[in-house]
Amino acid sequence: MSIVVQKFGGTSVADAQKIRRCAQRAFDARQAGQDVVVVVPAMGKTTDGLIDLAHEISASPPRREMDQLLAAGEQVSIALTAMALQELGQEAVSLTGAQCGLQTDARFTRARIRSINRDRIEQHLSCGKIVVVAGFQGVDEEGSVTTLGRGGSDTSAVALAAALEAEVCEIYTDVPGVLTADPRIVPRARKLDQISYEEMFELAALGASVVAPRAIFLGMKFNVPIHVRHAMLPDTGTMIVPETLDMEQNEITGVSLKNGVGRVTLQGLPNRPGVQADIFDALADAQVLIDDIIQNRTSKDHMNITFTADGQDLTDAREVLGEMLKAMGGEIRVDTGLCRVSAVGVGMRTQSGVAARMFRSLADAEGGPINIENITTSEIKIACILPEADGPRAVNAVHDAFELGAPAS
Amino acid sequence: MSIVVQKFGGTSVADAQKIRRCAQRAFDARQAGQDVVVVVPAMGKTTDGLIDLAHEISASPPRREMDQLLAAGEQVSIALTAMALQELGQEAVSLTGAQCGLQTDARFTRARIRSINRDRIEQHLSCGKIVVVAGFQGVDEEGSVTTLGRGGSDTSAVALAAALEAEVCEIYTDVPGVLTADPRIVPRARKLDQISYEEMFELAALGASVVAPRAIFLGMKFNVPIHVRHAMLPDTGTMIVPETLDMEQNEITGVSLKNGVGRVTLQGLPNRPGVQADIFDALADAQVLIDDIIQNRTSKDHMNITFTADGQDLTDAREVLGEMLKAMGGEIRVDTGLCRVSAVGVGMRTQSGVAARMFRSLADAEGGPINIENITTSEIKIACILPEADGPRAVNAVHDAFELGAPAS
Repeated sequence: MSIVVQKFGGTSVADAQKIRRCAQRAFDARQAGQDVVVVVPAMGKTTDGLIDLAHEISASPPRREMDQLLAAGEQVSIALTAMALQELGQEAVSLTGAQCGLQTDARFTRARIRSINRDRIEQHLSCGKIVVVAGFQGVDEEGSVTTLGRGGSDTSAVALAAALEAEVCEIYTDVPGVLTADPRIVPRARKLDQISYEEMFELAALGASVVAPRAIFLGMKFNVPIHVRHAMLPDTGTMIVPETLDMEQNEITGVSLKNGVGRVTLQGLPNRPGVQADIFDALADAQVLIDDIIQNRTSKDHMNITFTADGQDLTDAREVLGEMLKAMGGEIRVDTGLCRVSAVGVGMRTQSGVAARMFRSLADAEGGPINIENITTSEIKIACILPEADGPRAVNAVHDAFELGAPAS
Repeated sequence: MSIVVQKFGGTSVADAQKIRRCAQRAFDARQAGQDVVVVVPAMGKTTDGLIDLAHEISASPPRREMDQLLAAGEQVSIALTAMALQELGQEAVSLTGAQCGLQTDARFTRARIRSINRDRIEQHLSCGKIVVVAGFQGVDEEGSVTTLGRGGSDTSAVALAAALEAEVCEIYTDVPGVLTADPRIVPRARKLDQISYEEMFELAALGASVVAPRAIFLGMKFNVPIHVRHAMLPDTGTMIVPETLDMEQNEITGVSLKNGVGRVTLQGLPNRPGVQADIFDALADAQVLIDDIIQNRTSKDHMNITFTADGQDLTDAREVLGEMLKAMGGEIRVDTGLCRVSAVGVGMRTQSGVAARMFRSLADAEGGPINIENITTSEIKIACILPEADGPRAVNAVHDAFELGAPAS
């Protein structure tokens, strides 16, 4: 029998009523003849509440205990979900990360999956049970509970789908699927029927966070089709699948906007080998997370390096690099109030002029020209850093320029 | 190094502040040179909240999932307690029932302990850590989470103390120890310095529920000294220990009162072999819990059987037995509004006239004679069933008659 993994979000299991609805969804799939594995995270705001409790006890709670604590959240959800299924007359069993043999390394609060023991799950499935697995959590070699960090439940779901060779991993959300842009910003945004892992990865990493980037990466690696769909609607959503030839017919697939982008500009750095390594070593040591890195040479002896980062990381970067530049030479400048508009699509690889068309659309944008402050590109992405205030206009301009929208009715 | 097991109650870990206080207590013991194992239940009303959630989903939630659900409660407490210890600079590690190898049978919601793997705990202790164990829970052969039912955390604590050959199992409560009577009823009630397992067992079973009867039974079986003490006071409390010779110098050790006792009287039953077996088989099949059983023969052909039970069990008993008596002959009568006053003491075995003295004290009670409706006795207990309204007067009368109180100052 084919296996489907269904992953629900925290808001989808926020109360008893909603849990019953998720159970019904799983039940329907089982009735339709599939083996069903359900992955649920903690209910609604449970995790936040537990984190608050921990911080009442300690400003920096030990990571092992943090994982032990947070894992209790999913344990509640899986038990309730299994109860709801049995209430529907469907045999079901709940399994924690440890119980389903989801082995990880011992990097508490951000563990990496090492292996999944599919036997235990398959044994229950073969008895006709729906298996309800706790997302986000696993167990290390010593038997300590670990958690997978941000996006952990999506990651659990896709990893389970890979281990079980499931036909599909369904990710239930509160949107109908993956759209060409955020519909709150771009009214004519359109749902995509399919998108490639690579495109989705770029879009997710850039802030269109329907599915966690780690989960998409896993799906890509193990070739697991991921179906993003609305938890409350029967409609099919968007399939995230390997790239196909026909995807290249479109120049770009979607446009994303990320607000709250900050930028650090290092000016007048000495132009000699090792400078970049020194700078980013120092940032890595201080665990500062950064996004894009842009480097320009300004003269024979000097260069500029620019990188983007958010909130606290920006402050940390200034602190770490301030001292360093005094010794090395150069100045640091920090700007906030920026955004990143990105056009993503596997088609841009084979089509020329995509960048030009994007930049032109910004220059000709309705309401006046938009100034591009920085540009970075990858093989399937063009990203522009702009003033935050121009973000919505920019996204609409690019979306229109590539005719991504639903046909005007 | 000697090992001490410290068990705290749900109200003692009801919030972050209180958890910190428990941690301090464990830390002090460790500083004093002991190896410390802490056992904590779920925080305050957590378990009730989870039970409510389950009942929103199902009128009779499956027991396995109920245990999976409830065990999350202690998992939160142990993680927070371990955090609080580390905040004090004390290395600590939290272990769920499964993680500390507390193996049980698979009778979900009321599992029995089979074994405890002391290696894992001792390994942590030998590294200087305080080990924080989740009370109330264990794991069955299949790896499913089980819970031990009512009084489960006390039971976990004493079982751990037995497995680790601890010097003492400290049970922290909100009373200073075991008293000769309930001080809310008997103002002159006095704290006992020690009491035997047998006496404590009778008192606990009769409603003076400082320590769960199962835990006392385990302590008695494995000879674990149990120290009942106040969570917020430094004073020593009451040691529950094996019976010693000097205990027999007192005729009785304590007087307990249990309110809300109901009574079922079966009158005019045929006086032939097998009647009792039929009756109590039927009650057992219907899972009706009963307390005392009293039988009297009223004539050559007839007898009466009386037994006591609480609330729902009383209703169930009437239902189960009503039909049966129609066939068998006899009448059923159910009375409520009764109480049980019990005098307990190992000394009564060796001293005559204890029963007489107790009955006399009730007949001569201040405020008028108290009518005894039923009497049952065990080797170290005399219990009288009375109208509930007379309970407090009766307890005081017995307490005074045996001079249990603190000397009048």
